[in-house]
Amino acid sequence: MDPKLRRMVCSLLAYLVLLEGGMFSPSSPPSGLLGKVFQYIDLHQNEFVQILKEWVAVESDSVQPVPRLRQELFRMMALAMDKLRGLGASVDSVDAGFQQLPDGQTLPVPPIILAELGSDPKKPTVCFYGHLDVQPARQEDGWLTDPYTLTEVDGKLYGRGATDNKGPVLAWINAVSTFRALGEDLPVNVKFIIEGMEEAGSVALEEMVGREKDRFFSNVDYVVISDNLWISGGKPALTYGTRGNSYFRVEVKCRDQDFHSGTFGGILHEPMADLVALLGSLVDSSGHILIPGIYDQVAPLTEEERKMYEAIDLDLEEYRNSSHVKKFLFDTKEEILMHLWRYPSLSIHGIEGAFDEPGAKTVIPGRVIGKFSIRLVPHMNTSVVEKQVKQHLEYIFSKRKSSNQMTVSMTLGLQPWMANTKDKQYLAATRAVRTVFGTEPDMTRDGSTIPIARIFQDIIQKSVMMLPLGAVDDGEHAQNEKINRWNYIEGSKLFAAFFLEMAKLHL
Amino acid sequence: MDPKLRRMVCSLLAYLVLLEGGMFSPSSPPSGLLGKVFQYIDLHQNEFVQILKEWVAVESDSVQPVPRLRQELFRMMALAMDKLRGLGASVDSVDAGFQQLPDGQTLPVPPIILAELGSDPKKPTVCFYGHLDVQPARQEDGWLTDPYTLTEVDGKLYGRGATDNKGPVLAWINAVSTFRALGEDLPVNVKFIIEGMEEAGSVALEEMVGREKDRFFSNVDYVVISDNLWISGGKPALTYGTRGNSYFRVEVKCRDQDFHSGTFGGILHEPMADLVALLGSLVDSSGHILIPGIYDQVAPLTEEERKMYEAIDLDLEEYRNSSHVKKFLFDTKEEILMHLWRYPSLSIHGIEGAFDEPGAKTVIPGRVIGKFSIRLVPHMNTSVVEKQVKQHLEYIFSKRKSSNQMTVSMTLGLQPWMANTKDKQYLAATRAVRTVFGTEPDMTRDGSTIPIARIFQDIIQKSVMMLPLGAVDDGEHAQNEKINRWNYIEGSKLFAAFFLEMAKLHL
Repeated sequence: MDPKLRRMVCSLLAYLVLLEGGMFSPSSPPSGLLGKVFQYIDLHQNEFVQILKEWVAVESDSVQPVPRLRQELFRMMALAMDKLRGLGASVDSVDAGFQQLPDGQTLPVPPIILAELGSDPKKPTVCFYGHLDVQPARQEDGWLTDPYTLTEVDGKLYGRGATDNKGPVLAWINAVSTFRALGEDLPVNVKFIIEGMEEAGSVALEEMVGREKDRFFSNVDYVVISDNLWISGGKPALTYGTRGNSYFRVEVKCRDQDFHSGTFGGILHEPMADLVALLGSLVDSSGHILIPGIYDQVAPLTEEERKMYEAIDLDLEEYRNSSHVKKFLFDTKEEILMHLWRYPSLSIHGIEGAFDEPGAKTVIPGRVIGKFSIRLVPHMNTSVVEKQVKQHLEYIFSKRKSSNQMTVSMTLGLQPWMANTKDKQYLAATRAVRTVFGTEPDMTRDGSTIPIARIFQDIIQKSVMMLPLGAVDDGEHAQNEKINRWNYIEGSKLFAAFFLEMAKLHL
Repeated sequence: MDPKLRRMVCSLLAYLVLLEGGMFSPSSPPSGLLGKVFQYIDLHQNEFVQILKEWVAVESDSVQPVPRLRQELFRMMALAMDKLRGLGASVDSVDAGFQQLPDGQTLPVPPIILAELGSDPKKPTVCFYGHLDVQPARQEDGWLTDPYTLTEVDGKLYGRGATDNKGPVLAWINAVSTFRALGEDLPVNVKFIIEGMEEAGSVALEEMVGREKDRFFSNVDYVVISDNLWISGGKPALTYGTRGNSYFRVEVKCRDQDFHSGTFGGILHEPMADLVALLGSLVDSSGHILIPGIYDQVAPLTEEERKMYEAIDLDLEEYRNSSHVKKFLFDTKEEILMHLWRYPSLSIHGIEGAFDEPGAKTVIPGRVIGKFSIRLVPHMNTSVVEKQVKQHLEYIFSKRKSSNQMTVSMTLGLQPWMANTKDKQYLAATRAVRTVFGTEPDMTRDGSTIPIARIFQDIIQKSVMMLPLGAVDDGEHAQNEKINRWNYIEGSKLFAAFFLEMAKLHL
């Protein structure tokens, strides 16, 4: 078979398989400008895949602090700047200084890209955030293909960064370049903020956003982030909230050195016994947090919100199986979603200073540190939670009448983020999803903490939306990360449709 | 000042200092054979110190599995065999085979020495156990002198192995050689069992004892071990019991991989929450073990036993200060001693599989293993304790209705050891202590587990006694290990006196 024909047949088959798997598509193709845009994207999809392939080929790993990889990161940012300039954007490369490593070494931080297309005061200005750095990947870790060679198998584009986050960044660029290629006016002013250190904690980003607040961000109306995933294989989602996180350490100390359990066992207030009692007082076996007052500030559940969970497409049985968990704490989809998104949770992470190796050691640890954290939801506040946790642990500890010393501290306090889903961009994105996929989007939150959304909301004080493109099984951070060709191409259409809907709503 | 005179004055001063510190000595020197023996030992004390110096100079470290050190161990055993042969003993060097290291390598195990002086059926046969291997020591670790150069400062003989256990082995040999030098008949038949792997877990010893049960050990009447310490600085002790140990691992597993606390926090039966509840159910804040039935087999306290604790010389305040502990669970000497020696204790050692490093990691460990152990006392039994612990944990776990899997296992079960203090050798040793030190001995137990005592008792089925020579502050296993010249020399006299008392009682 002719290789070209063969590829076409394969793509068609893959597309049919995807449809079988629960993918959504509109009943009839759109007409007018949108029709032209979609047709262009369909016809040029191999070019779009080709650019993704070129970007995936750059090993822009920000996690391993190695000069060679840092050079690749700089090369990646330069490639992106060239691409944006090619679209006619004015591009600013913001120097981000140096990264201080724990060993005293320093490495240069790749520049943050601020780019801009159009500044028509009559149009809304939409700012897109993305990142071009990736997690480490080596074929030996269990990749079936070379992680830095984008490889298509059954409609899946395998490669490190394909879904996190090079694919979504390019989908946004594809949408812009389609209007340009068709000689059409962009319906919105578009801004880009693209960084290269997200996987390493977004070094220098927050400071830069603060600095640029009254300059680059002054006329931004909406911020869109496309750095998470749908919660299903085939149904698009809009994400309007993430949980915060208060991370605690509780230290119990008798003395700095350890004891021998033969020589001292029986006459000491053992720090581990105290710590285990403290940690055991935090949460019950149903997952309910036992710290007094902790639920007081949790937003009450409204009927409208409850309906959102009902509408979400989640096969609980499949989710449970793919998680390799025998049984969850709750039996219904709605309860599961609420306990991941809209209720706080408390997890005990571990203990530092005790015996943690394999085998048997008869030690009485002299000083131990428990680590736990609470995922916060609206309208919980890190400083209130800090006070409640400290009061609770002090009460539990005082009841033990231990002669040890207890110290509690909150080492990390990240507020939860939640957007107003009535904001215009959520409406525009919902309409764009309907147009491209012929379905309502799942209205989702993320149980984890993505500080960047809250940073934009707090500093720029504008509406923030997360508009993911990737499917739940894309395997971000894992081996064999991929983005489906379908998600990548339909995602490019989604962004284009979003621009048009945004413009209509802004009138 | 003449160096010799200077040393004599120093020794005298040191002796006076030691007396000030609470040392005991007899009111009047003994006469007869014992007087001659003591005089000989006093006069030849520098020779005895010189031999100890030669033995300490051998870096017989059995802990580090290094061929060079293993060679030194063989050299140490050869030196001891020469010394014993010089006394006229018949010496058997028992090949102990090879030690299998975790990395697959093997190292030869130094031979176990079985030596014998005299086999007069009318005399009792006393077998002495000791070891000539040592813990690792490097001057950089904080030694004030070279650990392998025995150095005397203020009557303290600093050097690795000085008190653990080369000094006591030589004290026994000094006692024997004194009778020999004086041309006197040994009052008892003497046997030696000396090993070179005690610090590495007495590889091959138990098997050898079993093998030699009906040969070398067949005519042994009493076993004496001198491998622990007094519980004070200046008052001798006889040790008649050690606690056993049941070591447990309790595993709670949801799945093999960890979870992210953002993505799964709130919907899981988290293994750490289960484990913390299990560990928290074991012991209360007063040190009382909460496992049902655990105290049922503990021997009741008799009035006689209580008096033993009252008689013991222990300055609780000093003990507390030197332990760097703010407050113990109990306020009286008697309670402290009983909870270290005659009541069981439970210590939680740590958790394997959880987050144990510094810093913050938002992980929900998927599989965690708690480690704890119970020190057993007469008449507790490891297999009964195993059943009680398993039943208790299963009950606590079942109440949580967790979907995780729990597995409990006892990985180590060592029975407690206790001797009958009415045995003749305890009476002989008590009389010898009175003669040499002019005081009653502290009747002590050891809170830790010394399997060798129980092994001898179980296999040979003869009376076992621990007769320590070193002071509480000798620092076995620590930097700046030492034995006081006074303890070493008076200890040699103690053994000689013990031989004579033993012979008298055996009539």
